[in-house]
Parts: sequence; structure tokens; C-alpha cells
Amino acid sequence: MSFADRHIGPSEHHQAKMLVECGYGSLDALVEAAVPASIRTAGALGLPPASEREATAELRALAAQNRPMTQMIGLGFSDTVTPPVIRRNVLENPAWYTAYTPYQPEISQGRLEALLNFQTMVSNLAGLDIANASLLDESTAVAEAVLLMRRVSKAKSSRVVLDADCLPQTIAVVRTRAEAVGVEVDVRDLGAGLPDEFFGVVVQYPGASGVLRGKGFYEAIGKVAKEAGALYAVAADLLALTLVTAPGEFGADLAAGTTQRFGVPLGYGGPHAGYLAVRKGLERSLPGRLVGVSKDADGNPAYRLALQTREQHIRREKATSNICTAQVLPAVLAAMYAVYHGPDGLKAIAERVHGLAAGLAAALRSGGVEVVHESFFDTVLARVPGRAAAVVAAARESGINLGLVDGDHVRVACDEVTTVDIVRAVLGAFGVRADLTVTTALPTGLARTSEFLTHEVFHSHRSETAMLRYLRALSDQDYALDRGMIPLGSCTMKLNATAEMEPISWPEFAGLHPFAPAEDAAGYRELIAQLCGWLAEVTGYDEVSLQPNAGSQGELAGLLAIRAYHRANGQPERDVCLIPSSAHGTNAASAVLAGMRVVVVACNDNGDVDLDDLRAETEQHRDTLSAIMVTYPSTHGVYEEGIGEIARVVHEAGGQVYVDGANLNALLGLAKPGEFGGDVSHLNLHKTFCIPHGGGGPGVGPVAVRAHLASYLPNHPLLDGAGPDTGVGPISAAPFGSASILPISWAYIRMMGGAGLTSATKVAVLAANYVAARLSPHYPVLYTGRNGRVAHECILDLRALTKRTGVTVDDVAKRLVDYGFHAPTMSFPVAGTLMVEPTESEDVGELDRFCDAMIAIRREIEQVAEGTWAIERSPLRNAPHTAEMLTGDWDLPYDRKTAVYPGGMSPKNKYWSPVRRIDGAHGDRNLVCSCPSIEAYGS
Amino acid sequence: MSFADRHIGPSEHHQAKMLVECGYGSLDALVEAAVPASIRTAGALGLPPASEREATAELRALAAQNRPMTQMIGLGFSDTVTPPVIRRNVLENPAWYTAYTPYQPEISQGRLEALLNFQTMVSNLAGLDIANASLLDESTAVAEAVLLMRRVSKAKSSRVVLDADCLPQTIAVVRTRAEAVGVEVDVRDLGAGLPDEFFGVVVQYPGASGVLRGKGFYEAIGKVAKEAGALYAVAADLLALTLVTAPGEFGADLAAGTTQRFGVPLGYGGPHAGYLAVRKGLERSLPGRLVGVSKDADGNPAYRLALQTREQHIRREKATSNICTAQVLPAVLAAMYAVYHGPDGLKAIAERVHGLAAGLAAALRSGGVEVVHESFFDTVLARVPGRAAAVVAAARESGINLGLVDGDHVRVACDEVTTVDIVRAVLGAFGVRADLTVTTALPTGLARTSEFLTHEVFHSHRSETAMLRYLRALSDQDYALDRGMIPLGSCTMKLNATAEMEPISWPEFAGLHPFAPAEDAAGYRELIAQLCGWLAEVTGYDEVSLQPNAGSQGELAGLLAIRAYHRANGQPERDVCLIPSSAHGTNAASAVLAGMRVVVVACNDNGDVDLDDLRAETEQHRDTLSAIMVTYPSTHGVYEEGIGEIARVVHEAGGQVYVDGANLNALLGLAKPGEFGGDVSHLNLHKTFCIPHGGGGPGVGPVAVRAHLASYLPNHPLLDGAGPDTGVGPISAAPFGSASILPISWAYIRMMGGAGLTSATKVAVLAANYVAARLSPHYPVLYTGRNGRVAHECILDLRALTKRTGVTVDDVAKRLVDYGFHAPTMSFPVAGTLMVEPTESEDVGELDRFCDAMIAIRREIEQVAEGTWAIERSPLRNAPHTAEMLTGDWDLPYDRKTAVYPGGMSPKNKYWSPVRRIDGAHGDRNLVCSCPSIEAYGS
Repeated sequence: MSFADRHIGPSEHHQAKMLVECGYGSLDALVEAAVPASIRTAGALGLPPASEREATAELRALAAQNRPMTQMIGLGFSDTVTPPVIRRNVLENPAWYTAYTPYQPEISQGRLEALLNFQTMVSNLAGLDIANASLLDESTAVAEAVLLMRRVSKAKSSRVVLDADCLPQTIAVVRTRAEAVGVEVDVRDLGAGLPDEFFGVVVQYPGASGVLRGKGFYEAIGKVAKEAGALYAVAADLLALTLVTAPGEFGADLAAGTTQRFGVPLGYGGPHAGYLAVRKGLERSLPGRLVGVSKDADGNPAYRLALQTREQHIRREKATSNICTAQVLPAVLAAMYAVYHGPDGLKAIAERVHGLAAGLAAALRSGGVEVVHESFFDTVLARVPGRAAAVVAAARESGINLGLVDGDHVRVACDEVTTVDIVRAVLGAFGVRADLTVTTALPTGLARTSEFLTHEVFHSHRSETAMLRYLRALSDQDYALDRGMIPLGSCTMKLNATAEMEPISWPEFAGLHPFAPAEDAAGYRELIAQLCGWLAEVTGYDEVSLQPNAGSQGELAGLLAIRAYHRANGQPERDVCLIPSSAHGTNAASAVLAGMRVVVVACNDNGDVDLDDLRAETEQHRDTLSAIMVTYPSTHGVYEEGIGEIARVVHEAGGQVYVDGANLNALLGLAKPGEFGGDVSHLNLHKTFCIPHGGGGPGVGPVAVRAHLASYLPNHPLLDGAGPDTGVGPISAAPFGSASILPISWAYIRMMGGAGLTSATKVAVLAANYVAARLSPHYPVLYTGRNGRVAHECILDLRALTKRTGVTVDDVAKRLVDYGFHAPTMSFPVAGTLMVEPTESEDVGELDRFCDAMIAIRREIEQVAEGTWAIERSPLRNAPHTAEMLTGDWDLPYDRKTAVYPGGMSPKNKYWSPVRRIDGAHGDRNLVCSCPSIEAYGS
Repeated sequence: MSFADRHIGPSEHHQAKMLVECGYGSLDALVEAAVPASIRTAGALGLPPASEREATAELRALAAQNRPMTQMIGLGFSDTVTPPVIRRNVLENPAWYTAYTPYQPEISQGRLEALLNFQTMVSNLAGLDIANASLLDESTAVAEAVLLMRRVSKAKSSRVVLDADCLPQTIAVVRTRAEAVGVEVDVRDLGAGLPDEFFGVVVQYPGASGVLRGKGFYEAIGKVAKEAGALYAVAADLLALTLVTAPGEFGADLAAGTTQRFGVPLGYGGPHAGYLAVRKGLERSLPGRLVGVSKDADGNPAYRLALQTREQHIRREKATSNICTAQVLPAVLAAMYAVYHGPDGLKAIAERVHGLAAGLAAALRSGGVEVVHESFFDTVLARVPGRAAAVVAAARESGINLGLVDGDHVRVACDEVTTVDIVRAVLGAFGVRADLTVTTALPTGLARTSEFLTHEVFHSHRSETAMLRYLRALSDQDYALDRGMIPLGSCTMKLNATAEMEPISWPEFAGLHPFAPAEDAAGYRELIAQLCGWLAEVTGYDEVSLQPNAGSQGELAGLLAIRAYHRANGQPERDVCLIPSSAHGTNAASAVLAGMRVVVVACNDNGDVDLDDLRAETEQHRDTLSAIMVTYPSTHGVYEEGIGEIARVVHEAGGQVYVDGANLNALLGLAKPGEFGGDVSHLNLHKTFCIPHGGGGPGVGPVAVRAHLASYLPNHPLLDGAGPDTGVGPISAAPFGSASILPISWAYIRMMGGAGLTSATKVAVLAANYVAARLSPHYPVLYTGRNGRVAHECILDLRALTKRTGVTVDDVAKRLVDYGFHAPTMSFPVAGTLMVEPTESEDVGELDRFCDAMIAIRREIEQVAEGTWAIERSPLRNAPHTAEMLTGDWDLPYDRKTAVYPGGMSPKNKYWSPVRRIDGAHGDRNLVCSCPSIEAYGS
């Protein structure tokens, strides 16, 4: 069987059965009925398929072209040892990587606990009160910190000060982001003092050059900032924080950075989990996700996402950030690294790293080489006038990459994998023969004295056996794709095939530093070029950038390209972004962050863009129109007929058309946004192209553009040959974003081939129409397009039922857990509805199991309507039911079997929710966002 | 932290606490108290430790020395594609590989179902009624078939006839085994007819040369055999059987072979699952394990090992085989390969393989090369007078290994990975330029017409998503080391570290043919040489063979070495093997199969060997004494003081001392069998050296000997330079047995180093004494040694309790499931007892959880004694309790919570037994050993 036959759930035989239910004689007939002819692409996709074996062999050949050297370049990326038990049982375990974002907290307790460990780890180390559940990378985390400081600061200034010794990529990302929102970036040597007016200041700690200054220096900045009404952010290295004073202890309001060196492979730049921690009082301004503790219906402690209404994509044009995701999988890896090592283990690693760096510096000095900084943690800056390139070249001969700062300076960053032999080889590259001695180079007075990671969880998993069981126990609490269907509208929870996943663990992909010389990454470069080419082919665009490491970042990059295009054309006044009312909130948030004004376009009763309103708004904003952002098929799950007209109207008014690629799974092989009107799109490799959701990240959000926008794609200051005129600046810390997971999408496209991708799209449309056909007698399907067909998802309207019976979408969603399912998307894009996207990967057995469950639930709703059960005492409201409930007294009006094995389901392989329904409001009122004490469980 | 600190569960801090409980001030004091000074080794082990990272790097360097060529050598080993979803979720998933043998069927339903699939697959394809749950490899499976035929046949002859076209390694293994038990092996071309008298005949199907003969040929053999009162065994290729008539359909009584080519990597020879299938009437003579269907206490169908009392190690000196294990993990892989592909998929693969072979043959002929056989399945035998070596060398230039038969013949075996390009390259090596045409070369009339794999399970997991969920669902039913402790006496269920496991999936270890030229396997050879050296160092022996692929085979190899030694010394009459009454039954079974007579030596009240009886038996058998087999520490878990005297007495009488290495985990670094009296030992790499149990295999049973026995170790006819005088013949199909899992033990020793191994031993002894100390107030500890200390395990005596209360070891074992544990070893070595081996890997938290559970169960027993509960209605007898039970009426005298969350355990991460207690006798009376119909579940 071909890979496509394995990826696509329903066999041809079963497809025929499903088509009968939909009333069509063939798949093509259904597709013709559903998809407007006007958008269909002419030819077939020109990509031949490969078998799993062939694709793996090709990837091995690409991997073999990479050279994972000993990486001592530093600049925020350090090599580290991923404990094998964590690699195998998290990174390589579908129970972790196929999980969805924990919006259904009851069935996500395992990864929520892991993320709470992450938050506790970060806030403990940073010495601040609260940390979020990760951000995309260090540079964007600092950019978010800058934006947060601007919102919160009472200073009138729009200036942020960055220490000149901040990471160069961080400075560049902040500049990209600041330009769009009118923030002035003042980069200066803080040793020379601060300006009079500023709203925030950022210090790198230790500096990019490695330097650690005296405690007084860091404290003084905090004092000056406070006096200026400004805030103080520190971009801190978490490993260093095990040895030196925490930012929160010398006056910082925020800390930001990366957790990469806590066991997460370099991966040529990502994905890694950035972090952001704040002092008390700022928590409600934190962007990103925050895990908190609440209680369930039985009063037991339970985890959940806190302050969800504060999330940026919900706030739409009022958003202050466009972050709507996290880096859950890397964050879990980092948190588990801390759990496994504990505070003593982390400190021992830090001491070893520091000892080697200090020994190196001492040996260099004794060998006559000038070492620039007296104090540092892991990075030694050597001054070798005129010899820097030669030293770096000599080190490469020994398989070591050093940091070439300029003609006179070399940076040597030590890390967890540095050995005495490596330090000796580095000394050799400098031409120094000197003994290594034990010494230290931490500033007096800066030593950390406070405890950290005192919670039990960081002390009770020291053996591999204990760690293994903890990981299994956590994952067993969660529902992921390896248990059953996750029918999430707009999120395309399809198969993440093993052949796609295996290569990301290979050392040749995992071991590359993002700033390694291009020749080290020949395999990566070729893979990236091929993938960009294929994505251009399937979308109809001319150029693709893989740098954005989330969909939201792809949106921002696309809008920044449009902004730059208008400016280059002498039309900087074009700043209006039209967004249909049905759009995903992130669209509006991204537009705001791209410096645009959002104007909402109405939808008509069919859910489609109201063309009259579009024309009116376009007319009104003709001179300032920058762009329209539309999702296609629409977020209502419908192929709108009017897309051509929409593009025509906007183009005619001088605007650009941004087609949000969230729903590309309904288009591949059938239609290309670059052909039917789009100028730019972002794609979600974690939706359409099989990168697993990882429990809520990582994602990759490439941005694809037509030729006229190509020169405004993101560039990167540390990428060979990137000058300031090659793009709008970087949008991510690494030149290729989350490079190490790109082999997943590469493998998917390579193995499916054009024909396979097209089949997948058709079957995805069939599956949605099949579910709609089976369920519409029981739940109205809210919107449909041509011939009453939906696209790749459908919206089930519960509003009338809710009104009549009191049964809410929440009740249905939680009851589905009892039936062994993850809930569909709740109340998006329309409150009171459920949106179902079955994808092509679910076979008919699973589709039927889901439909049967929904129909059985519909009968339960009817029993509430008939008064058999009061809603408050119905199995719907009490859902999900736990096993523990069964052991207590039972005074409910339905029996235990109805509670936990409803609809005649087999007790075999029952998924048990570990907690009952969680009280969200309680958690928001009593915000607890780090690991609760053991006693909390007793009470 | 060092790897040893991760491998060893209790931290030093916790060790101190445990020592207090045992009454000792230091670990060394305890060890000195427990271990007789007379056996202690003098120096420390001379092995330095490596970190996980270092060991992995060394293994990568070794792997890089292997050359996984395109393997077309054939001879029973074919390359195959392991579906990645199966590799990751079975072979690389601790839920599967850390499971124990399914002796506790209630908590092993997942792998029992997988094995039932295996049996169904084999029996369907072979066209026979019943198949066992796998044997060690094809050659030993045929040897077992020969022994079975001898037992069952009514013919008076002791002659077995093997077709000359049987696999050469099979002929050699049968010869090794036959020699010892007086079977005459008659190898002849069956085309020339059968002799007058014989008890069995074996045909390879297709032949080793590739040939397929006419149906009449195969039928005729069956008829002649029947007339002679003999049995007919066919060594059949399962993939071929999808296209050609099944052995059972042309009169075979038995079929044997390998399932390797069903997705199991070549792995330089193993581990692979052999198979043995028989016609109805022979099932009770089948060696090895057999999974059957029975019912649980609620009458629901449930799987279990059938006919367990028939197992060979239970029958001791009455045994007819010494097989006491299976190859569960490879068998699961093979079964899942069949589940994933289904009958149509398997047939398509077979047709493709055959088509390429037939095309190759036609092209060779058209190019003027003589092809010897008209009909064949996948293997083409070409006659190239004088050119064979040159052709093989030319193919190697293209990266292809062909089979060099002799100077004039080349064998080319096609398989699942063969492509048209590969066939073209082969043609090139022959100097043939010819087009490939579609053709066939199956004998007319031999085509398979019967259906196979009709059961639903082989038709409902065609998508990767469905397969993934099936694998997860099965593993979720089972209890393995990733959930909690498996305190099995004598089985050493310690950590199987990820760093040990990862390398076995690397293609450089997985992709080698066992008969590939030595230069292709330079990395393997070096790894094997190092491992042999280390094993010699830790055991005090001079020479080690890694060929035996199970402990039982190691025993047999060791005894055959002793037998050969006596014969070489002109004392063939030495055939008495003394075995203490406490010995594991496999010892006696192996002795029988080595042609020895077993004489049992009594044990005294302390459980030690009765030295007086030993002296008496030695005296009585002085002239015929061959050996004594003793386990050390004894199977009673005690360091016997008398071991030195035992060895002295036996040696003085001219006997050899065989020290069973099952309990080596109590010796490493403290004592060496080769120093304290042993002449030979087998080791269990799957116990002491961390190869996971895999749910009941694979294991590796190296045999280690002192120098005088070295020339009698196993050799192999296909190993470079192995002449008949280099050993006793092969004991396994492959020269290095289960080579591909040797990196596990290599990594363990390398990472622990001598000091780590010694610490592990000491902590294992500490853990056992800690458990004994905590539990002895509640359950008498049956045997102790010096100073009242046990060795690495302890026996809890329940006999008095059983007598007083009716609560049996079964009741306690099953009740432990409710508490979240796997039961200890039941009724071995003493009926009515439980044997607990905690190992060094369990931390004090888990040890205490176990002790607390046992103490809580002791209180429950007391409630039975006090009459609170009648035994029949007690939670002990009703255990294990399922979640399903909770939903029904409850009229038991204890509440639901007591049933499922006893001892105040947390409901979090409860392990639920999927079935209630299984009725073993019912299953044996109504033997069902293939997948039951879906309807069976309804009834």
C-alpha cells in the first residue's frame, strides 16, 4: 500500500459508502458540487510520491550533508544533553506529541502538570512571581516583554532601551516589531548610563559577549528605571541563574529568555521554548498561555489554562500581542530536564560549565591571550588582534565552531557537552599550551543565595525508572490522537505519521547551531529549498519563508511585507486592514501589531462576507486601504463563492489580499490561493502539513507571497549575506525558525506526492460532508455553501437546543469525554455551536463512532427536554464522570453504567477522565500558577 | 549524575535509611554479613564507566563500521520493511518491551491478544490447526519439530530424514541436537526417495536453493511418511505461503520456520520469532508457549497461557524440550505486520517479490545464464561455471550481497526491499543486459486457493491512525515496568535504560544479514569481542559464546561442552548430572536434551544443598558423574556457604561444575563463578544485563567456560573458518544468535563500569534485605543465609496463612493488581510461597509502596481469619476488580472503594485490570488458540 493509503483513513470501499450517505456517486462529483469552479486550479500538482522507505533514505542522505560540530558559538543557543528517557518518552511518544492544546483541561491534566512544572521552574529561577507556559523563542519573548512594558509603564516615552550587549538577533527582532507599532529602540552601552526618558530597559544577563557585571550595576538599572516610571526586563540565562543572583532579586520586573539549554536539542534554531516571567501585579498583562490551579466539581485540585478570556486571539483588535500558542513540547522537555536533574543537578551542571569556561580563560591568559571580561558564566571573549578568523578556522579543523565576533575577537561558549578535551582543543586553536586549573570567574557578591526548585516534584524523580513512570503517568491522564479522534474545527488534527517524525531525532538534524556556517548545514539548506519550492507549488505563490515559528508570526510577517510594500511604493498612509467579522481573532491581533487599523466587514446570513459591506468599506477607506485578510474556505467551513469578487474589489482599490491558510487542508490540489486572488498567505505546517500539535506547540507558520512581495519577506542579521535591504528584518530568533521539525512536513509532501495530497483534500471534504449528513437530522448544520455542501468542517448549531433544554455546548463537549472523544471546537466561530473537522485520516469506523456518540447525546438531551432528568442532575451536566465517582454513594437519576459506559460502549480501553468538570472562574479568582504544595491536595 | 546513579533507584541518602531498617551501618557491612568471604573476589572489576553520551558516541562509531548492504543472500533471512508505526510503538515503546512473560494473564491481555494474532497468522498460513506463540528461530524450531516427531511417531526407527535442500544452518542445528539424544540424521535428496524406516521427515519449502517442486512431490512425501508411521514436517516460508499451497493442505503434520520477514529487522541474525504449527491431535505435544482463550470470573472471554502444566521447565527431568520462553517482542512485530497489511497486502508483497525474482530469472536466461530451477518463489539459483566468485564480487561493487553457493553457483534471493533497480544491478553483476518482463515461476497446481487471515483483526487496521490506536489500546491493558514494580523472584526486572535501547533501531545494527561477509560486520565483531571480554572479566571465566539465544540454550550449550569434554577425554560413560531439588526445572530439561541422566540431590531444612546427600550421590555415580548444575545464589535466594565444598566434591570425582547464572545479579563485582568453583555458566543478558523481557522474550543466554572447555563451545557452519572441530556445532540459526540486542548489554556494562556494577549488586542485596526486614513481621521469610540475611531476593511463606485462612498465593498475587503491582513469582521454588526480587532499580518510594501494599493485604487476610469476610466473598478472592464491576449491583461485604482503591491509594493513575480473575482450567478443557470470532464476545 502507498503511504497515502495509510495516511487517508477511509478505504475506497468505505469512501463509496460515505458518498452514498452524502448522495453522490463519486468523490469527484462531490468535490465538484462543493468547490466553486472559479477557484479550481487547472493542472495536477507536479510532485511524485515516495514510499516511506524511499523518503527516509532521501532524508538520511540530506542529513548526511549536515555536519553537527562541537558548537561553541553561544549567542543564546547552547548544546545540551537530552536525557534519553525524556527523548523517547516525550519527544518520540505520540501520547505527548499528538495531543492538542489543553483547551479541554479535564483531559489534559498530564501536560498541564508538566507546564506547571515549567512555570514553577522559570519563576523560581528568575526570582519572579509568575511565569507563563512558554513563548516562541528568546527574541520574541523579549519583544513581548518590550510591548508589555510599554503597555504597563506610566512613562510618557515611546522609547525602549536595549543594552548593546543584548543578543544581536534579539535586538533585530525587537527592531522589526517596534518599527510597526511606533516604539523607538535605543541600543546603547548601559555602562554609560540611561537616557532621561524611556518606558523600559532590557539587559542581557550574562551579556551576549559573556560578561557578568557587578550586582550594583544590575541593581542600579532597576533603580533608575523605577525613578523614570519605566520597567526593567532582564534576558537571563536560566542555567546561569542557578549560580548568580536572580533578576527578581536585583529589581527586575520581568525576565525573558529561552529554556533551550535545558535538554532541548539545538535543532538548527528551534523549536525551543522561550519564557517570560513577571513580578506580581503584571500577571494579567502577560501574553501567551498561563496554566493555573483550580478545582473540579468534587472540589479536588485540577489544572487548567488560567485567564483565558485575556488571551490575545480572543481580544481581537484590542489585542496587545498576537501570541495564541506556546511551545508545549519543548517546554515539557525543559521542565522534565529540571525535574530529572533537580536543583542540585542543575547547579552541578552549571558549575561544571562555568569551571571549564573559567579554566579556559585562565589558560588563555597564562598563554598570553587577552580575555576581555573578568567575570562571566560560560562564555569567554578573547581578543586576538587580526587573528580571530585564523583561530576560528583552526578550531574548525578540530571539529569545533567558535564565535567569530570581528577580526580581533573570538567568542567561546561552554555548555553541558563541553569536556576538558574540547577546552584543550580550543586552546590549541588559539595556539596556547597551558594547563587547565580549577578556578572561578563569577563576580563577588553576585552569587545566588536563594533556594529554587524546592517543590517535591523536583526531588522525587532522580532514577530513570522513576522518571519513566512519571512521564507515563502524566501522559496516561491525557487524551491524544493515539487514543481516538480529535474533531477540532480549524485545527486539522490529522495523522502525524511515524515516518515523518523519526528523522527529527537524528543527531544530524538535532545537533546544528543556527548560526553555524552554511557549509555545515548543506542538508538543511537543500531540504529547506525543496520544501519552499513544494509549498510554492501547492499554494500558487512565488516565494516562501519558513522563518515564522507560529501561524501568528506568519500572519505578522505577511502583513509586515504588505506594509513594507506600500511604503516602498510611497504609500505609507495605507494602514487599513479589512477583516470579516467571522475571522479568527488572531488576524486582528496581528494587524494591530503590524501597525494597521482594523476595519470589520460584516457577514451575511449565510455566513459569507457581505459583498455590499465590503464594497462600502473599501470605498470609504480607498486611500488608506492596505489589505484584506480572509480565510479560505471561511472559518464557517464553507467555500465562499465570492472570493474572486472580494479580491477584485480590494485589488482595484490598491489593497493587498491576505488569504489566511488555516484551512488549506480543504484546498490542496484543488485550488491555490496564489491563483484565485491572494497576494500573501501564511500556512500552518502544524495543521495541513502534519507537524503534530505537541499538546499546544510547536507550530511553523511559513509565509508565502507573490513575486512583488518577495523582497519584503523576513531576513535575519546572522544569516549569510542578509543585508538590511533584503527584507523587513527577522521575525524569529533563528534564521529558519523551527528548522528541526521541517523534515516532518518535507516527508509528508514527499510521501504523499501531488496525487496523494489531492486525494487527502477530497477525502477531508468527504468526511466533513459525511459527518454533516449523518448529524444534520439531529443537530442543524449552521452554514453550507454550494449545493448545501460544507468544505472540510461543519458547524453544529446547538443554540436552539440550549435555549429549549439548558444543555450547553460545554455539556455536550464534556459528555463526549465519557464517550471516549475529545470535544470539537467550542463556540468558535459562532457562540453556542460546535465545529467539527474530521480530517482525511479518520477511518469510517471512527467517524461512525463519533456520529453515534453525538446522536446518543442528542437522545440524552431529549431526556432532559422531556423532564426525565433535570439538567443540573443529568449525565450531560455531570460529565465528565470519573472512575472515582463510581465508588461513592450514587444518588443520581441515572445509573453508573449510563454515566461511564454510555451508548452501549465497550468497557475495554475506556478512557477515564482523571478529574471532573473544572471550575474555571474559581481558578481565575484565586490565581495559582506554580506547583501547589502537596498539602493543597490534602485539603 | 552518573548513569549508575540513574540506574540504581535508591539514592545514598535513602540507602542509609534502608540500612537502618536492616540493622547495618553501611552497605559494605551488610554485604560482608550476607556474602560468604570464601567466595568474594579479590580485586575490583577493571571496567571504567562512560556517560550515556560517551557510550552512545562509541556505539555510533562501532555502528559506522558496519555496512548494511542490499542483502540477497537468502537462506532464511530476508530483508523487510518494518512499518515505522510498529517500530516506534512496539519495538521502541517501554509499555511493550519492559513487560514480563504473561504468567499473570489478567494484566497481560494486550500482548496475549497480540500473540493470539501471531498464532492465528501462523496456523492460517500453514494450513494447520494450531500454532504456538513462537520459538527461538527457524533452525531450533525445526529441531523441536524433529524431537516432537520422535515422541509422537509410532515408527520404531530413531532416524529422521532431512531433505538435502534444507537450510544448512538448520541441518547443522538438528545434528547438534540429535547427536545428544540419539537421533540419527539422514540428509538426502528427497527427489531420490525415502528410506524404509524413519520417524520423521523434514522438507524445506521452498528449498534453500529456492526450488519449488510440484504439488505431487510434496504430497507423495506425506503419503510415504504416513505409511511408515512417521510424521511429516515442512519448514515453510510464510510469505511464500500466501501464494502456494499450505503444508497442511498437502499432508504435512507440522510446519516450522521463521516469521522474520514479516517486518522484523535482519539484525545480523536475530532476535526473530520462529514458529511451529501442528495438526489437531498434536497440540498437547507442542513445545513452547501457547496462548488460549478462556473466561474470567464474570464469564467474559479472556486470554491466557494454555496448558501451562505442560510447559517443559515444569516437567523437569520428564521434559521433552527445554524451551521455557518465546520471542514475544519479535512475534508481536510479525503479527502486527500481518494485522497492518492484511491478507491482500501480504499477497501483494509476495507477488511483487516473486515477480521480481521471476523477472530476474527470465532476464538471466535471455542473457545466456543458466537458471537451475524452473520453479521458485523468491530465490534464483544461477549456474555460472567458474564465475560465481566474480559475480558475487561484482554485485558487492554495487552494494549488493549475493549468495555464493560454490565456484559455479550464485544464489539471488529477492525480498520486500528489492526494486527493479536492484534487479538491474544484479543482472549487471552477471554481465547480463536484458529487459525485465513480467512473468511467473510458480509450479502449476501449487497455487494457493484457500483463504487465510479472514479474521476481522486482519482487516480493520489499514490506516496508520487505526494501527497506532490498536497498539496503544493493547499496551494500555498491560502492566509493565513503565507503570510500576515487577518484583519477580529469579527474573531480575530491572531498568532497561533508554540509552541501552536506542541503538538497536539504528539501521547499521538492524540491516545486516547474519551470513554477510565479516568485513561488513566489523563493528558488530568488535562489539561482540568487547562484550565477550567484559563478560569473561565479570564472571571469572576464560571464554564466552554469545550464540545461545535464550537461557535454556545457554544451558544446553554448556552441558554439551561438558559432554564433549568427557568424550574427548575418553570418558563417554560420564552422563550423570546432579541437580539439587531446588533447581529451576529448565536445568533438568536441558540435561535430558544434552543426553544426560538426572540425579536429584536433596536440600536440607535450610534450603541449602544437603552436602551429605551430595557426597553419597557423588560416590554412587563416581564413574559416570558428568556434572553438577547449581544455581548461585541458590534459587532460594541465599548465598549458600557450602558452594566451595560442593565444587570440591564434584571435581574430586571427575565431574564438572555448572553454575547457573540466573542469579548473577547478586554476584557481579562481589564474586565470580569462574573463581569459586564453576567450570561453566550460562548468563541471562535479559536478567542481569538489562535486555528487556519484551513480554516474554527475546533473551540471550551466553555460555561462559573455563579454558579447558573453550574448544567445545558452539560454532557455526556459515561462520568464516568454522570447521567441525572448532566446537559442538551450532545451537542457534545465526552464528551470533540474537546479535542485534547485544548493544543493550554492551551499553549497560559500558555505562555502569566495574564500580557501578558492583554498587548495583550491593543495592540489589540491600533492597531484598530491606523488603525482607519490612515484611518478615507479617510474612515469614522462608530461607536465609549467614546472619539471617537473604541475597538479592526473598521467599515469603504463605503456607501457614493459607492453611489457617484459605487465602492462597493466587489470592495475594491478584489482590496486588488492585494495589497497582505485578505479582511476585508464585510457588517457585516452593509451592505456597511468593518470591520477591526487588532489584537495585526500584527506589525506596516504590519499595515502600510495595511493602505497604503487602502489609495492607496481610491485614485483609486477618479479616478473613477473623470471619469479617468469608474467603469466597473477600476482596482477596474477588481480585482483581475491574472498573466495570463498579457499575453493576454490589452485594459484596466490602465497599467499592475497598475493592479498587485499597489501602488509601490515590485514584490518580490507577491501573485497571481489563478482566477479572481468569479460569485457567476452563481454557485448558476447551482449547481455543486462535482469534475467537467477534460473536464469541457477545455470548
